[in-house]
Amino acid sequence: MLNFSFQNPTRIHFGEGKIAAISQEIPLDARVLLVYGGGSIKGNGVYQQVSDALTEHTWFEFSGIEPNPTYDTLMKAQEIIKAENIDYLLAVGGGSVVDGAKFIAAAALYEGEGGDPWDILVKQQAVTKALPIGAVLTLPATGSESNGNSVVTRDEYKLPFSSPLVRPLFAVLDPIVTLSLSERQISNGVVDAFVHTIEQYLTYSVNGKVQDRFSEGLLQTLIEEGPKALLSDTKDDLDVRSNIMWSATMALNGLIGAGVPQDWSTHMIGHELTGAFGIDHARTLSIVLPAVMKVRKEQKREKLLQYAARVWQVTDGDDNARIDQAIRLTEEFFKKMQVPTRLSHVDLGSKDIDLLIERLEQHGMTALGENDDITLAISREILTKAL
Amino acid sequence: MLNFSFQNPTRIHFGEGKIAAISQEIPLDARVLLVYGGGSIKGNGVYQQVSDALTEHTWFEFSGIEPNPTYDTLMKAQEIIKAENIDYLLAVGGGSVVDGAKFIAAAALYEGEGGDPWDILVKQQAVTKALPIGAVLTLPATGSESNGNSVVTRDEYKLPFSSPLVRPLFAVLDPIVTLSLSERQISNGVVDAFVHTIEQYLTYSVNGKVQDRFSEGLLQTLIEEGPKALLSDTKDDLDVRSNIMWSATMALNGLIGAGVPQDWSTHMIGHELTGAFGIDHARTLSIVLPAVMKVRKEQKREKLLQYAARVWQVTDGDDNARIDQAIRLTEEFFKKMQVPTRLSHVDLGSKDIDLLIERLEQHGMTALGENDDITLAISREILTKAL
Repeated sequence: MLNFSFQNPTRIHFGEGKIAAISQEIPLDARVLLVYGGGSIKGNGVYQQVSDALTEHTWFEFSGIEPNPTYDTLMKAQEIIKAENIDYLLAVGGGSVVDGAKFIAAAALYEGEGGDPWDILVKQQAVTKALPIGAVLTLPATGSESNGNSVVTRDEYKLPFSSPLVRPLFAVLDPIVTLSLSERQISNGVVDAFVHTIEQYLTYSVNGKVQDRFSEGLLQTLIEEGPKALLSDTKDDLDVRSNIMWSATMALNGLIGAGVPQDWSTHMIGHELTGAFGIDHARTLSIVLPAVMKVRKEQKREKLLQYAARVWQVTDGDDNARIDQAIRLTEEFFKKMQVPTRLSHVDLGSKDIDLLIERLEQHGMTALGENDDITLAISREILTKAL
Repeated sequence: MLNFSFQNPTRIHFGEGKIAAISQEIPLDARVLLVYGGGSIKGNGVYQQVSDALTEHTWFEFSGIEPNPTYDTLMKAQEIIKAENIDYLLAVGGGSVVDGAKFIAAAALYEGEGGDPWDILVKQQAVTKALPIGAVLTLPATGSESNGNSVVTRDEYKLPFSSPLVRPLFAVLDPIVTLSLSERQISNGVVDAFVHTIEQYLTYSVNGKVQDRFSEGLLQTLIEEGPKALLSDTKDDLDVRSNIMWSATMALNGLIGAGVPQDWSTHMIGHELTGAFGIDHARTLSIVLPAVMKVRKEQKREKLLQYAARVWQVTDGDDNARIDQAIRLTEEFFKKMQVPTRLSHVDLGSKDIDLLIERLEQHGMTALGENDDITLAISREILTKAL
């Protein structure tokens, strides 16, 4: 096991009716800005529940945060924050809303040289202060509700930043809320959480037995429960939704990745697919991951065999056959989740690879993977394998 | 899954050389009381490492905390706390030292009616203030380093209290430190962590798939790694020690028990065995648990079958045969860990059961288990089965 430091202080309130907990979580003298997206929370009753919980509080609202939240939209929130002396953000939505709230929180108190919050993203200037954030999660996927990570989009750039200061103080996870999601939203969420887990697991072994078992447990849960959320018989089963929701949070709250190597190449290559062609984040991952597995088979051999045996119970055949079978089963799982597994499934072809490689180079993504040895040439090989 | 709220803000520093982290964790203007046990930390270099890390700090020391820390000893620490205006506790030791530090921290600032800290234990008076605590763990077992629980002994009473205010702010886990433990200490620690996990797992199913998988992963890790820590070939393997240490912390930091029923009957009955006969805590658990499994076979049937299949890969035979085999394998694991599995192994017999039942009654332990239905009569049945 590698040395590590780990802390996750976000208080989780999980279960039906837990949105009411925000009334106790947010100080009564706070001036709260409710931050949300396109208004689906008004249709599914969440906005009403939040309003009901905040009757004693002073609060304002800022809506319109997009999937892949944009810098320009997030900066608009600064006006109301200044005008109303906002000192607490309540993010109500999925990962994009929570990610957006994190940037709003950091930008509001940014004091770096020049004072331009853009530097947080483009110069990776450290966040030294941020407004406190609480979250009501409506879409299980990114884990953003209990981590300090955020990705913000400006033009074709998807730029991440990270700080413990923007980790939500609390997060409400009510699985009932997820029943109003579209099939596409729920499938994207399951696939995102699955790939987050894989990226902290499928590297080389450091004998981190607890981390491996926990990751395998999350993968197994997502494989068992994910497809049920799309089948008419089981899609409204609250247990299914609960297990998916808790898996997605645990997949990226820092725990399973503490003390083990990580390989975020699938995400990094995927980001370029979203930036260049507007493909849903999770759908870029389901296209890229199988190709990463195939191209990095030798480097990931030991863990791929473990993945085959423990996650898929594949024990017949020689090493190569077992690995190939595990990759095939991964692709079948993605198909059950109704997401694409090839570039051709989203109408892209070999002619589009040059642009993606160019963007990877532009964004400094020239040494990806757990050993920093996925060069641009290997990323090209991965994209070619994904055709 | 059951509704839950969960938070664990303890910052973990894990790995070789991490004791040095305490110099940054404890504020420089703090007046620190180093709290420890019988002095083994002077033999194994830990005291020296702590001293080296605290050269810039003002610190004092209080030693002599026993296994099963006593109220009288802990109250003695109040003198130096008052005399030296101590405002930070650093617990260096195993679960007993950390548990002891928690009571010292709560007693130091206790303001309840009458002002007698004994009321925290005997009247379960709420803790409203406590000194901050940091921990350097030397014995993986109880999980006390990152939870808010403590057990204090006075005469034959083992009394628990719990408060988020006494949860350590940080915990250092350096597996190298555990190499100097005796075989008995390490085996006790592994068994304690194993039973903690079982008590949050082996109840009835609420379809908490993540919690179940995580618990099973911890059990499997302890089964694989525990015996290695006692074999001459592998006992100094740092990976073995690391996996045991991280398992023990995860087994009782609140995570695997969030959203699922719990059954602490083995601990409660075991406490009486320690109180009445001075048997090591873990060794009471290895005696009581198999008997609980046997006597509560019907109530725990579904989970026992899951335990058999997933933890022990027992899939042959009918339901009863598989359950019996899983219980047998549990006992064999305990034997490999060199702990007793019967009352007769610690020279107790049927004549001693009356006293234990009397004590359970005295201490209000008349409705134990996940359904509060383990009456004194059933506890007697369990103890009889354990003969």
